[in-house]
Amino acid sequence: MTLAGGVGAARLLAGLVQVVDPSSVTAVVNTGDDMVLHGLHISPDVDTVTYTLGGVSNLDTGWGVAGETWHVMAALENLGGEAWFRLGDRDLATHLYRTQRLSQGATLSEVTAELARARGVGVRLLPMSDDPVRTRLTLAETAGDLPAGSDVAFQDYFVRLGHGVAVRAVSFTGADAARPAPGVLEALAAAEQIVICPSNPIVSIGPLLAIPGIGAALAARRDDVVAVSPIVAGAALKGPADRLLVELGHEASVAGVARCYAGVAGTLVIDEADAGLAGAVEAEGLRAIVAPTVMSTPERAAALGRLVLDARR
Amino acid sequence: MTLAGGVGAARLLAGLVQVVDPSSVTAVVNTGDDMVLHGLHISPDVDTVTYTLGGVSNLDTGWGVAGETWHVMAALENLGGEAWFRLGDRDLATHLYRTQRLSQGATLSEVTAELARARGVGVRLLPMSDDPVRTRLTLAETAGDLPAGSDVAFQDYFVRLGHGVAVRAVSFTGADAARPAPGVLEALAAAEQIVICPSNPIVSIGPLLAIPGIGAALAARRDDVVAVSPIVAGAALKGPADRLLVELGHEASVAGVARCYAGVAGTLVIDEADAGLAGAVEAEGLRAIVAPTVMSTPERAAALGRLVLDARR
Repeated sequence: MTLAGGVGAARLLAGLVQVVDPSSVTAVVNTGDDMVLHGLHISPDVDTVTYTLGGVSNLDTGWGVAGETWHVMAALENLGGEAWFRLGDRDLATHLYRTQRLSQGATLSEVTAELARARGVGVRLLPMSDDPVRTRLTLAETAGDLPAGSDVAFQDYFVRLGHGVAVRAVSFTGADAARPAPGVLEALAAAEQIVICPSNPIVSIGPLLAIPGIGAALAARRDDVVAVSPIVAGAALKGPADRLLVELGHEASVAGVARCYAGVAGTLVIDEADAGLAGAVEAEGLRAIVAPTVMSTPERAAALGRLVLDARR
Repeated sequence: MTLAGGVGAARLLAGLVQVVDPSSVTAVVNTGDDMVLHGLHISPDVDTVTYTLGGVSNLDTGWGVAGETWHVMAALENLGGEAWFRLGDRDLATHLYRTQRLSQGATLSEVTAELARARGVGVRLLPMSDDPVRTRLTLAETAGDLPAGSDVAFQDYFVRLGHGVAVRAVSFTGADAARPAPGVLEALAAAEQIVICPSNPIVSIGPLLAIPGIGAALAARRDDVVAVSPIVAGAALKGPADRLLVELGHEASVAGVARCYAGVAGTLVIDEADAGLAGAVEAEGLRAIVAPTVMSTPERAAALGRLVLDARR
């Protein structure tokens, strides 16, 4: 089974399903980025994984649906509405569906399964929790009319502010009271192997680890947990993981990632570019496996999938 | 000022603005049909009036936006979502805007004014109330899996059931506690003249009259209130007004309409086709004015607008 954020996780999962039966794979997906906008419940990471595994993701942007149209957003802009979070027409249908089902009393788990099935996704997708957990960031500096110290929702930081502002703290509102979604702890206990996908350790995997029970379940299976570093040669392939690590007192390197995961993972897969840091990873108590980790093609993703399956200590 | 439902009201208002300064016209619009679907707050009558006065209404269907596209709805159907209430892409932008603004604490009055301004509507549009009032119908017979006696929301009756089922009662949930929207009572008190548009007396104008204060304010101005019959030659031009009148114990004729409005209107404009019933209208205590009322062209709508302006007793 896998712990997943957005784009990096989706790519690794797309690699995994090329080398194993998709139905044997469970992905527990971050919902700390979820938001309600225009009254619609949006689950960005769940959608990225679903669209990618459903073969409809927009590979150019890394989010949304391929061949998307923008009629609603264009009309909303004409009305003077909030259009900073770009929602394509087909993407909107997902959010309408989810919101309507939730309003009828369905759980996020149920809706996630329904949307995955509708898109022909064979992997079992679980949100990390059916309870609301919201990743929030405390700004370390002024951003527009937001003074330093402002507490902003993840998408405000990531999209509206273009993750171009320094942060000094991250919190996961609601995590203390959240229960893992049905099946999450069972899957963690029963899995032959557990993979932490190459997602942001702080804001993508961090929310999962903040939910009572999930971190402990991982720690109990530490030898079977293989993480893939999202940091390659000191930089994030996508997003602000490198800067966030530094801003929050970590090191933007595979050694910094190893320190984040030292309690829950026995192995860290690092890129060939970071071969020289294998010793630093081992110094954190994790075995280092050096391999090509940049999933620039489906073949490379499949090769990485095969590698993590064989990587268990 | 005018009391308005959907299509018939929108047409008369479009006629009025041809003959008077739009800014001198206030329309208090029914919101009893409002609903939340897919998490979105939809105000069908307000939208019909706004789209019509904004020059973007779909004249073929009588609802929605001209030249509409349906990408979201098609994708929603592919997902197995609820698609019985057809929401075009441009129409959806209206609902996203409204829902987002309401979630930010704006009132329905404020949002209605913003959307009207964005569409270049010169008439002052007021929802009947900023408080939720919901028109509900009690079915007199079985409809699909709904047994007789079921209590359904207006759009379930009107759209989902295609208003093809008999009803035995109408109620306006929340009306008792609802306050007229800001400006409504002031406009009723100050207006030179008050026009009840050719809308369904029971489910379009009925909700307005059910709000404490509005009926009394009309009754106090009864001599200045001119209603236009939505029933022509015993039939509704659009919708189920004729059947509803009969099912609820009224007469599907201009005399039946006169009886509905006897307490609040001094004058009823009836179509030439109903000239023979002028006496029956007068017997209900209303003056009858006979005129062409079918607004099949903008010219006819303007002529009817001119006529109602001159019609005050």
